[in-house]
Amino acid sequence: MVYLTRVEHFNAAHKLYNPSWSKEKNDEVFGMCANENWHGHNYELYVTVKGEPDTDTGFLYDAKKLSNVIKEKVTEKLDHKNLNMDVDFMSGQMCSTENLAVAIWQQLEPYLPKEIQLHCIKLYETPRIFVEYFGVKV
Amino acid sequence: MVYLTRVEHFNAAHKLYNPSWSKEKNDEVFGMCANENWHGHNYELYVTVKGEPDTDTGFLYDAKKLSNVIKEKVTEKLDHKNLNMDVDFMSGQMCSTENLAVAIWQQLEPYLPKEIQLHCIKLYETPRIFVEYFGVKV
Amino acid sequence: MVYLTRVEHFNAAHKLYNPSWSKEKNDEVFGMCANENWHGHNYELYVTVKGEPDTDTGFLYDAKKLSNVIKEKVTEKLDHKNLNMDVDFMSGQMCSTENLAVAIWQQLEPYLPKEIQLHCIKLYETPRIFVEYFGVKV
Amino acid sequence: MVYLTRVEHFNAAHKLYNPSWSKEKNDEVFGMCANENWHGHNYELYVTVKGEPDTDTGFLYDAKKLSNVIKEKVTEKLDHKNLNMDVDFMSGQMCSTENLAVAIWQQLEPYLPKEIQLHCIKLYETPRIFVEYFGVKV
Amino acid sequence: MVYLTRVEHFNAAHKLYNPSWSKEKNDEVFGMCANENWHGHNYELYVTVKGEPDTDTGFLYDAKKLSNVIKEKVTEKLDHKNLNMDVDFMSGQMCSTENLAVAIWQQLEPYLPKEIQLHCIKLYETPRIFVEYFGVKV
Amino acid sequence: MVYLTRVEHFNAAHKLYNPSWSKEKNDEVFGMCANENWHGHNYELYVTVKGEPDTDTGFLYDAKKLSNVIKEKVTEKLDHKNLNMDVDFMSGQMCSTENLAVAIWQQLEPYLPKEIQLHCIKLYETPRIFVEYFGVKV
Repeated sequence: MVYLTRVEHFNAAHKLYNPSWSKEKNDEVFGMCANENWHGHNYELYVTVKGEPDTDTGFLYDAKKLSNVIKEKVTEKLDHKNLNMDVDFMSGQMCSTENLAVAIWQQLEPYLPKEIQLHCIKLYETPRIFVEYFGVKV
Repeated sequence: MVYLTRVEHFNAAHKLYNPSWSKEKNDEVFGMCANENWHGHNYELYVTVKGEPDTDTGFLYDAKKLSNVIKEKVTEKLDHKNLNMDVDFMSGQMCSTENLAVAIWQQLEPYLPKEIQLHCIKLYETPRIFVEYFGVKV
Repeated sequence: MVYLTRVEHFNAAHKLYNPSWSKEKNDEVFGMCANENWHGHNYELYVTVKGEPDTDTGFLYDAKKLSNVIKEKVTEKLDHKNLNMDVDFMSGQMCSTENLAVAIWQQLEPYLPKEIQLHCIKLYETPRIFVEYFGVKV
Repeated sequence: MVYLTRVEHFNAAHKLYNPSWSKEKNDEVFGMCANENWHGHNYELYVTVKGEPDTDTGFLYDAKKLSNVIKEKVTEKLDHKNLNMDVDFMSGQMCSTENLAVAIWQQLEPYLPKEIQLHCIKLYETPRIFVEYFGVKV
Repeated sequence: MVYLTRVEHFNAAHKLYNPSWSKEKNDEVFGMCANENWHGHNYELYVTVKGEPDTDTGFLYDAKKLSNVIKEKVTEKLDHKNLNMDVDFMSGQMCSTENLAVAIWQQLEPYLPKEIQLHCIKLYETPRIFVEYFGVKV
Repeated sequence: MVYLTRVEHFNAAHKLYNPSWSKEKNDEVFGMCANENWHGHNYELYVTVKGEPDTDTGFLYDAKKLSNVIKEKVTEKLDHKNLNMDVDFMSGQMCSTENLAVAIWQQLEPYLPKEIQLHCIKLYETPRIFVEYFGVKV
């Protein structure tokens, strides 16, 4: 079994604000991240898939096709967007990097071909903070 | 003469939207950057100063003090903020990386000690796009 | 389960020298790293914790608080220090990056809150050499 | 148990071309990678080994010796070479990064000392595409 | 005056071989780089332009349009190619990184709009070797 | 005229301590950098030379030979050393990164061949602090 990772990029705005809390509690818990006028990040997204390389091509999966499906199903819906306002699959939940990584797994996993398995979504919020999600173990 | 550079970081939201134009013209010129719900970046800021090192210390200027003045006069006013809405020194102008680099020079330059000169503001908008400003040549 | 990583930095001096061996054997085994007048590194420290994100905040754990506990319990004790002479938790053992990673785990693990588990200490000695430690499997 | 990683570098040319297929099918499947006049990469190779650090040295294994064995058995056979034409252990198979990572494992594993185990071969083809191989699980 | 840099990427094969010399002299001068079966690199290309930002847009020049003209005139002619065999503007000269940087300047400069000036072509051959060219001073 | 840069690496220990001052004044001015038991860094050294590429080779200068002269005259004298105690050309002056960059210029410049000129010594002390020196303008 071999693991293949493709790195993609998107820029987005968000804020961390729980509408069931007071403004004071939001400021206390989220600090500068609760700024009502938004802030944003350059996110770096690492998508890792696993499987057996094909003997005719030597490929686990064509990295160009993997890039295309990530762009179509994920990054085009997030790039230059407001995560709280513009992204249907983040509505009704906090726009933390943790929740975003899990949501990206759920968006992408159904569209990968049967011969490969999604292994990890790794998402850099800044160069010094990142989150990893490996799916639900069954 | 020796040049010393200190790298600082901030996250911010912005949009590119000229209020004297129609929405159609803004979309045509700025594309995804005109998204009315904002988007954002992790900015990396390189501040370069120049001068003669002091013989007693070997320092051009203390990098910790340089970091402190950049934080106080620049990055604390930009980090986790909305450049269009929250930053007084960007009001009335487009929030492009070009204009932001020039404005950072103007914010910082008066607060540097007399023995050093500001040489360059270099500002990464993404890992693949950056702007440099060297001040007005007199 | 989600994994969150915070990257911190420290600079330190050390040497590799086993006092129960002759100088000749130390030079033979450790080469330049046995230089009696010390040498040093910019260490990059990756701390990974794991757990379930909180539904109210979307956070596994506040990255700012995680940074604060790493600074208080680990990097402030190591930054601009001599690992062999200044660091109580390294006394009596060789100051290799392997041993330092294990010691950082032991320093940090008791101070993390109950809702998260320490998963990995990853420590870069140079940009081309790093060590990982995942604790004792039980 | 501790994990130690050493990063090495090599440059090489290759093409992706299955000789049992027509030129048209190769172009369709491999696109620009099938260019008959070759293209090339700066490969970054991460070799991770695992084991128990030695109490006398604090080392899992001397990173300099690990570098030497990787150079002798792997990178000197690949650097400034044509993977399809010059590398005996790639003959008869497609020169994909997936197959190259597996072949590097097979070249290196027999020459590591008994006290350490090879854990992972990670190979960057470009800064945004990489492959990992962890051996055959038994 | 403000400087804007856009970073692009291409992979290519080449060899360094002077056909007016003997094989022995080529091997002596170019070493592994003279390998007749080619080798290759991931090149990183930094294109810097300069000028005055437009007051309506805040842009020196649209970074997306700059990327498009670099791709059309330069990187699409180089990516996944053999620099010695496939690239018309390198024919008849040695495929060193120095010559390639000068040739990229000559390819790109006529196609930039009048309001901006090309300032620098910076080309990384490996992460530790790069070349810069600033044009002919007049 | 073309500029060629070669990047080299060394690790070293140092402290910032002016022997003509009291311990209190050293602590006040240099803070943690005055720690009497040393601290250290992974330094990254960028050496830039300039000149005209040779028409027979396409090279400004052979990057391998440039690397060799930097190693022989500079980095082998600094790597795994104590800058205050082990390095003759730093004796009698403060071991700041500013002074070290100037001293590296003076060590290297006499040994470069006549056809190239030294243009810049750029020295990273940490990933976020660096110094540049361009020699004495005449």
